[in-house]
Amino acid sequence: MTADHINPFLSAAISVFDSMLGVPLEREQPFVRKAFEPLYELTGVIGLSGKATGTVAVSMPAEMAMTVTSRLLGESQLTSNDQVIDAVGELTNMIAGAAKAKLEKMELSIGLPAVIVGRQSAIAFPSRATPISIPFKSPIGPLVIDVGLVAAPVG
Amino acid sequence: MTADHINPFLSAAISVFDSMLGVPLEREQPFVRKAFEPLYELTGVIGLSGKATGTVAVSMPAEMAMTVTSRLLGESQLTSNDQVIDAVGELTNMIAGAAKAKLEKMELSIGLPAVIVGRQSAIAFPSRATPISIPFKSPIGPLVIDVGLVAAPVG
Repeated sequence: MTADHINPFLSAAISVFDSMLGVPLEREQPFVRKAFEPLYELTGVIGLSGKATGTVAVSMPAEMAMTVTSRLLGESQLTSNDQVIDAVGELTNMIAGAAKAKLEKMELSIGLPAVIVGRQSAIAFPSRATPISIPFKSPIGPLVIDVGLVAAPVG
Repeated sequence: MTADHINPFLSAAISVFDSMLGVPLEREQPFVRKAFEPLYELTGVIGLSGKATGTVAVSMPAEMAMTVTSRLLGESQLTSNDQVIDAVGELTNMIAGAAKAKLEKMELSIGLPAVIVGRQSAIAFPSRATPISIPFKSPIGPLVIDVGLVAAPVG
């Protein structure tokens, strides 16, 4: 995986946060996540397939997820946890969708987001697909996007 | 989502466990998972896309995951956690791949498995895609497969 594969996710996240939430994201130094390193409390996970296969995980603290949900819905009062799940899933979907558009040559299609909830949970990728983690900071909290992509088998 | 969509995953799991691990799986009553209901310690998650988009999650206790890994590798001594992550990811991939073959009309392609690790973690799907959970019991431990599938937008 090269910078050419990572940059579309990076700029997709910045652009989605700006246009949908009015929140500026500031990128920090990418790193390689160790297995069992804990995620933030809410993590949207979405699969990519096409000429490459991959997974994107968008992880944020609970408080930030609630702020994101309020802004997406335009409501200051949240009435259920389902709203937060849907918002984190939808945000993950929008970031993957924007990155997909920038990676046209890979002819990616994106799956349905699932949302992982848990203070102690961790995410790991198969050893053949070392993921790159891109941390961001923002006025509403920190965010980490993990991207793992491998070339799809030919045929 | 109907039985026609669930049955391929059910028979895929039974067939993969039989052929790859020599383990008989016995299905129990499917249920609708409530958000925040905890998963077992290791959960492989894989995205599906094509004429439908979806996610499959295969969740098992840590002890069972170690037994699965030993059997897949043909080694009784495991040397690293990465072996277990890879085995759970690969098993998830094989189940999704076998189900995909049975759902030919949906022209599904499958993503890269990610593995969720955590005793307290839970998985939730967007409210538009109520997942069905299929529990199994086996001589090496219990297993739950969650399937969420929705028709892909036309165009």
